[in-house]
Amino acid sequence: MLDETMRSVSKAQSLKDIGTPCLLLDRDRMDRNVGRLRERLDRLGVALRPHLKTAKSVDAAQRVMTSPSGPATVSTLKEAEQFARAGVTDLIYAVGVSPDKIDRILALRADGVDLAVTLDTVEQAWVVAEASRRTGDPIPALIEIDCDGHRSGVLPGDAAKLVGIARALEEGGRLRGVLTHAGASYGAVGDAALRACAEVERASAVQAATLLRDAGFACPVVSVGSTPTAHFAETLDGVTEVRAGVFVFFDLVMAGIGVCAIDDVALSVLATVIGHQREKGWILVDAGWMAMSRDRGTAKQKIDQGYGLVCDIDGKPFGDLILSDANQEHGIVTVRPGSNARLPDLPIGTRVRILPNHACATGAQHGAYQVVRSGSDAIEAVWPRFGGW
Amino acid sequence: MLDETMRSVSKAQSLKDIGTPCLLLDRDRMDRNVGRLRERLDRLGVALRPHLKTAKSVDAAQRVMTSPSGPATVSTLKEAEQFARAGVTDLIYAVGVSPDKIDRILALRADGVDLAVTLDTVEQAWVVAEASRRTGDPIPALIEIDCDGHRSGVLPGDAAKLVGIARALEEGGRLRGVLTHAGASYGAVGDAALRACAEVERASAVQAATLLRDAGFACPVVSVGSTPTAHFAETLDGVTEVRAGVFVFFDLVMAGIGVCAIDDVALSVLATVIGHQREKGWILVDAGWMAMSRDRGTAKQKIDQGYGLVCDIDGKPFGDLILSDANQEHGIVTVRPGSNARLPDLPIGTRVRILPNHACATGAQHGAYQVVRSGSDAIEAVWPRFGGW
Repeated sequence: MLDETMRSVSKAQSLKDIGTPCLLLDRDRMDRNVGRLRERLDRLGVALRPHLKTAKSVDAAQRVMTSPSGPATVSTLKEAEQFARAGVTDLIYAVGVSPDKIDRILALRADGVDLAVTLDTVEQAWVVAEASRRTGDPIPALIEIDCDGHRSGVLPGDAAKLVGIARALEEGGRLRGVLTHAGASYGAVGDAALRACAEVERASAVQAATLLRDAGFACPVVSVGSTPTAHFAETLDGVTEVRAGVFVFFDLVMAGIGVCAIDDVALSVLATVIGHQREKGWILVDAGWMAMSRDRGTAKQKIDQGYGLVCDIDGKPFGDLILSDANQEHGIVTVRPGSNARLPDLPIGTRVRILPNHACATGAQHGAYQVVRSGSDAIEAVWPRFGGW
Repeated sequence: MLDETMRSVSKAQSLKDIGTPCLLLDRDRMDRNVGRLRERLDRLGVALRPHLKTAKSVDAAQRVMTSPSGPATVSTLKEAEQFARAGVTDLIYAVGVSPDKIDRILALRADGVDLAVTLDTVEQAWVVAEASRRTGDPIPALIEIDCDGHRSGVLPGDAAKLVGIARALEEGGRLRGVLTHAGASYGAVGDAALRACAEVERASAVQAATLLRDAGFACPVVSVGSTPTAHFAETLDGVTEVRAGVFVFFDLVMAGIGVCAIDDVALSVLATVIGHQREKGWILVDAGWMAMSRDRGTAKQKIDQGYGLVCDIDGKPFGDLILSDANQEHGIVTVRPGSNARLPDLPIGTRVRILPNHACATGAQHGAYQVVRSGSDAIEAVWPRFGGW
């Protein structure tokens, strides 16, 4: 854990002298990304409950949430505990709850955090109901809906299962609503496909909520969300809130499916040239997979970005220059296979920025964000980030 | 950074009650792996200089190194600084040096650490020589040799380049020797191919050292190493030391190429069952790619292990049960495609251990090792590990 004092830069540092590899966050791009989605959801009349699993940073969360106390979404209890300590009191833990997690959930709730859990089986509902009865604290839960077959959840039309879970839950706990995530939207490409994913996500959640209400349950919350669908939904009728995470930073996978432009990507890894294999057309840099992550999310997209798209120190892409292979601490920069672009002359010591395939995965490799402004090479601040569970 | 007091387990914990996901280290398997390679290298008459980039843990390093002060290898200056603080004084930084790293290297050397650097260009040699002259501290350097075309280094027969680098270096610095890494051995399969890789690695390093000695340079160190070649070299004539890293823990990639058995793998991720999609044959667990890493190193091997091989809580593989897909905090466990194995009945709350594809990558996702003994479910100790640069 970085010390509080690390949040302001004690010695003025710049992109030219900071140690590499390190994680850069362009705050202007981030603020623009956040502003764009907020405005869109305001227009659609739904609340934004950002997923803080991407940033895992209190400083970033404060710029993303619509109020200092939330609402927000988390993927681990560590996130819930860290954000609760920073004053966030309205949280959904959006990964299926298991019995071993109950004590930490109860502790957070006893501390005044309105932490809701997610589940999709009667067995989990029994566990939540029993803990609620035992403590006299009715734990709120959302039933996860499987809108596109990619992960967990109850099928949206499975009234018997939905009602069975709701009944088991309300023997002590409390049904807060339904929740779904259109994970399949990450594989959609283009406006029409993304709009279709968004509508499937919306309609599935609303269908499940309607079945529950028809059976006599209030089901006040209808929660949907993924970054692609949040940006392409044409209507969100019946939905009360949208969860999205990666939109804060965006990345090459999101650019590849058409959700953002390359110059919306706010996260990059600053690296230094450490060698050349000239006859092979290779430039070696000190950012390998440890700095970029092993995520190869663009491998199946139309444009394979390798381990990342290489830009100059100011963040301008060279064009068809990618991190085509990576060892733990070595990256191999080449022209993209099939391109006619020329390899730039980057002497040893040259600094480059590398845009990541997947912001959540690359972020997780680093202990802090070096915060910069567009068009400046000064490090404005250092925002610690945490990992673990 | 975890507190020192975390190293001993304050409240007795076991695999049944510790929070999941978490990283388990079977100390008996680790000790066996270390003992096997030590004995092998003793027989071949060369020193072991373990690569500490895999463990990134002072506690683990102390069991792996042949003395408390080293020798050892590091891939980042953060590792050098952390291990130096713990008393390790004989280190090679085995990633090509760049000008921005010199100040931290000089600081470590001024503190009494015999830290040698690695380089493969005249430009880097100039930088090292200039810093050496400036401080009156001749920085030792190893010339990296490219034995199999996979990364950095000078071709082993390129006498002109080798001598040019050595001359530039000795204008202030000091030629410590040559260093190579048979990275291509990770793609070799079977005894014959692995023995051939080892011999190429040995012969390349010795050839380069001979050329340098013929030109009048002492070149005392001839350093080779990768886990596969270290275990398959038939002779290491002319070599003075072997670097290897992943052998400490082993992993599924190493098992896939025949360097170890599955039951040598000392690292695993403990996870909890959080759901089922029974009609699809899926079991959901709370270990996704955040806990396992995005490494898919077995994807191109004969047996694709997905994101990991699933075992029971005692570490016994179920047989053909793998983590076939992963979201950030969700893992999807299935029978391996093509297998006739039956999906075991694992109720919500069941604990499993998942063996990783790549120990270095999976380790890096966690802040500590939960140390266990073979056949026991008690957590014996918690060893912190560090990340960053």
